[in-house]
Amino acid sequence: MSTAPHEDTYVVGVDYGTLSGRALVVRVGDGAELGSAVTAYPHAVLEETLPSGRPLPPDWALQVPEDYRHVLRTAVPAALAEAGVDPARVVGIATDFTACTMVPTLADGTPLSEVPGLEDRPHAYVKLWKHHAAQPQADRINRLAEERGEAWLPRYGGLISSEWEFAKGLQLFEEDPELYDRTEHWVEAADWIVWQLCGRYVRNACTAGYKGIYQDGEYPSPAFLGALAPGFESFVTDKVEHPIGELGRRAGGLTAEAAAWTGLPEGIAVAVGNVDAHVTAPAAQATEPGQMVAIMGTSTCHVMNADVLREVPGMCGVVDGGIVAGRYGYEAGQSGVGDIFGWFVETSVPASYAERARAAGETLHELLTRLAAAQQVGEHGLVALDWHSGNRSVLVDHELSGLVVGLTLGTRPEDVYRALLEATAFGTRVIVETFRDAGVPVEEFVVAGGLARNHLLMQVYADVLRLPLSVIGSAQGPALGSAIHAAVAAGAYPDVTAAAARMGRVHRNAFVPDEAAAQRYDRLFAEYVALHDHLGRDSGTMRRLRALRREARTVDLRATDQLEGAHA
Amino acid sequence: MSTAPHEDTYVVGVDYGTLSGRALVVRVGDGAELGSAVTAYPHAVLEETLPSGRPLPPDWALQVPEDYRHVLRTAVPAALAEAGVDPARVVGIATDFTACTMVPTLADGTPLSEVPGLEDRPHAYVKLWKHHAAQPQADRINRLAEERGEAWLPRYGGLISSEWEFAKGLQLFEEDPELYDRTEHWVEAADWIVWQLCGRYVRNACTAGYKGIYQDGEYPSPAFLGALAPGFESFVTDKVEHPIGELGRRAGGLTAEAAAWTGLPEGIAVAVGNVDAHVTAPAAQATEPGQMVAIMGTSTCHVMNADVLREVPGMCGVVDGGIVAGRYGYEAGQSGVGDIFGWFVETSVPASYAERARAAGETLHELLTRLAAAQQVGEHGLVALDWHSGNRSVLVDHELSGLVVGLTLGTRPEDVYRALLEATAFGTRVIVETFRDAGVPVEEFVVAGGLARNHLLMQVYADVLRLPLSVIGSAQGPALGSAIHAAVAAGAYPDVTAAAARMGRVHRNAFVPDEAAAQRYDRLFAEYVALHDHLGRDSGTMRRLRALRREARTVDLRATDQLEGAHA
Repeated sequence: MSTAPHEDTYVVGVDYGTLSGRALVVRVGDGAELGSAVTAYPHAVLEETLPSGRPLPPDWALQVPEDYRHVLRTAVPAALAEAGVDPARVVGIATDFTACTMVPTLADGTPLSEVPGLEDRPHAYVKLWKHHAAQPQADRINRLAEERGEAWLPRYGGLISSEWEFAKGLQLFEEDPELYDRTEHWVEAADWIVWQLCGRYVRNACTAGYKGIYQDGEYPSPAFLGALAPGFESFVTDKVEHPIGELGRRAGGLTAEAAAWTGLPEGIAVAVGNVDAHVTAPAAQATEPGQMVAIMGTSTCHVMNADVLREVPGMCGVVDGGIVAGRYGYEAGQSGVGDIFGWFVETSVPASYAERARAAGETLHELLTRLAAAQQVGEHGLVALDWHSGNRSVLVDHELSGLVVGLTLGTRPEDVYRALLEATAFGTRVIVETFRDAGVPVEEFVVAGGLARNHLLMQVYADVLRLPLSVIGSAQGPALGSAIHAAVAAGAYPDVTAAAARMGRVHRNAFVPDEAAAQRYDRLFAEYVALHDHLGRDSGTMRRLRALRREARTVDLRATDQLEGAHA
Repeated sequence: MSTAPHEDTYVVGVDYGTLSGRALVVRVGDGAELGSAVTAYPHAVLEETLPSGRPLPPDWALQVPEDYRHVLRTAVPAALAEAGVDPARVVGIATDFTACTMVPTLADGTPLSEVPGLEDRPHAYVKLWKHHAAQPQADRINRLAEERGEAWLPRYGGLISSEWEFAKGLQLFEEDPELYDRTEHWVEAADWIVWQLCGRYVRNACTAGYKGIYQDGEYPSPAFLGALAPGFESFVTDKVEHPIGELGRRAGGLTAEAAAWTGLPEGIAVAVGNVDAHVTAPAAQATEPGQMVAIMGTSTCHVMNADVLREVPGMCGVVDGGIVAGRYGYEAGQSGVGDIFGWFVETSVPASYAERARAAGETLHELLTRLAAAQQVGEHGLVALDWHSGNRSVLVDHELSGLVVGLTLGTRPEDVYRALLEATAFGTRVIVETFRDAGVPVEEFVVAGGLARNHLLMQVYADVLRLPLSVIGSAQGPALGSAIHAAVAAGAYPDVTAAAARMGRVHRNAFVPDEAAAQRYDRLFAEYVALHDHLGRDSGTMRRLRALRREARTVDLRATDQLEGAHA
């Protein structure tokens, strides 16, 4: 296929993140990124109070749907203007979203929070992915599914997250039954925004599978749901079930209203919704089996296609067509990566290093990276466990915590920093080996996300994994991935993989393993695995420390209460 | 006994530390400290070169004997002047010293380094306690002693240190045979300084036992020594064996020469030599069985008397009359305590904390202590292992290293700081329990040394140990302890315990255990013990990390060599 047919046609990808939405204008023929714009959500994340000032309980995280429309009205026109592209030449628009982010709506898609009289009801709002108040519900779902031996449970590595559709739905059911009754659709924000664009509700295959427990054409059974809570039997049939759209398909045509918002032509293709991590795979030309894409930022999400269906211990999920249609999409994750490095730099590096960095015109991250890069493998004598935010894959235990071993009076900040970088690489290797052992081998490791800029980190990953490491060629992976889906939905390419070959961008083999380093890393990795298994599976130390911490903080709160009582 | 007879008589204690000597003038009747003075050793510690400029190999640490005499000529007169005491009223002088610090001498006590022509021979100098270049010799001694089942080995917890008399002596024998031959006495500095004062060489019972492997009236046998190295059979008979003096006994009378140096009356009592840690016990009125004295500074030394002889795993030694005559003196140690806290503050506390401390007019230690003190036990969710300098008692393994477990993105510097304080307390509890289990129970914990100033640390120790904690009432524990020995040697008291009752000072029960805290510490301690046994005894992780570190550094050195070669 030559690029000629699409030389002057364009698509728009819109990436909905946690705090803002980004629009990107892309040329269909070669994926050139011509203009972009970001709009912050006016209400950001509601964690303390509703807009009315009503306080929220701990662990809540809500959003306001109008903020998402606001992105369409501001970022899309701004990106078009920056690109200098005639909007009439735009043939499609696609979106990706955080997930699982849930909108309770009426039959016509109106969010309950926009229904007059419900503005002050917390459960009427969007429950953002990081709303963690449904943990008790998730725990019950997991216990019951395990007891009943539900066939779908191993498809999620043995554990459903409190972030997902059913835990959040059960919380709504139990905590605000009236609003539950008024909820006519329990909609992924990824699909709600598409509904806003094209006027049709299409449930995308990605979130239906990864977040909605949709496996082999079925959701959890009424019997299961009823056993969870009497009255919850009909949750799926009443509020969840809806036709599924393949990724890259056209969900509908842009409505006149959405055309007015965006400045785009009415009727152009609107693609089926998608998720930020998963949509990145085609942006990095990584849709073939064995190409594991790691979106590395504060945390890491791994997505990979395969032609086989396997149950991988501790994976986040496997979904038929979950990344591209026609393949099984696998997902895994590390709950803490960049945020561990950030925490270390913020809490554990002395003033003398801050001064050195300032004098050298570097950030602390750059200084520590430079110092750490000068070391031989193993020279620091340290091994760390990267569980400061718990462990998602493969242990699936949020009560785990971080560890550094090998400290001496000669240990310096750059030593620990390097050990933490390495620990996240070891964590990735555990995932890669678990996939391999389950019959889903990883052949290439493709990195997207902000951490790809750290070349030491990239080389460590190549050496630790003994895999060639490719790096995405775009700083806007998700938005580019959405643009690719828009092009496919518009009919410019026969499928996502074909579009990715033209429009995606990757530096193939940007880092290759050094065998001498790899051999020494093997020895450090053996220590990591020994600690991983001892502390992650056997000893129970970390769980008991967590329990003691919780108890001690309760004592603290009681003491504070008494104090306040005494003052009152 | 009334204080009246000693109202106007005085003694001088001189404490020889690593970098300086301190003289203290003390009233015999009540132990009042009337004047003191410190003299730094002009040559400090020779670690890089001899005074001639000749370079020294790694791990060497030498001193110059004349520096010790210099203390007598300067610090003693200065302390007398400060005290405003008529020197004619001084009835005795006693000294304590670092150990094991060894002086090779001629028959008359002349150090070989003062023999003309030997100034440029490293082995002619004093080998300071922290001279660690005899590790290969110590390893061979330990291996052979274990193979042969030498009866004295368990008296040292199963391990002879590279710092002690036999390892250092074997190094001299093997590395400079000519100087070995010229060495007529292999003398503890603790005894050499007494020899300088009274003109008689008396070997003190403390170092003979703890450092000289003198047990049940015997040294290691010629057969053992010959098996170590042919020609070394006669080491004991030729250079080590010498009459032993009980602690607190008079070694002799002050010579005219030493009287001239010090300004003290000729002929006054000079006490048998002693060691800084051990001499502190009477200064804290802690010479009864069950009173464990912990001298807590950069490291901790534990000394305790008992009426029974037991073999305690991992202790540093048990010596008949090693602390006071007529009792078995036990010694144990933690190789890193205050230096771990110092390392943490220097390397792991961010600039923001430095600013807070500055604003509050506190040191970083004070700030972290204040913040940590506000926490409930277990609130930080952490457990640490305090092996940043290895572990002396009870594991006796210098290849071990430090660990922190339980880290989260919410972990703050004061959390880790508190966990490190607690870890050293847990390390002490392991020692205390090991003594108890061996039949040598600890009833009271008596703290001396600089760390006693940290009240949080003291309360943590009381709670963790569930023992009443007493604190020495003098900032000059060793010098006061020496003064007590001087008073006994002068005949002012019948024995050291009687003198200590009048002259020693202690705040009895300064900190008492809080049962609620103690119960929560029991749970943290259980985690400490689990990690202690897993990483200290079973897993081998720390030793392998050390080995890898050594190898990596060798690679580094080779790379540097090649680089330098390329530039040459």
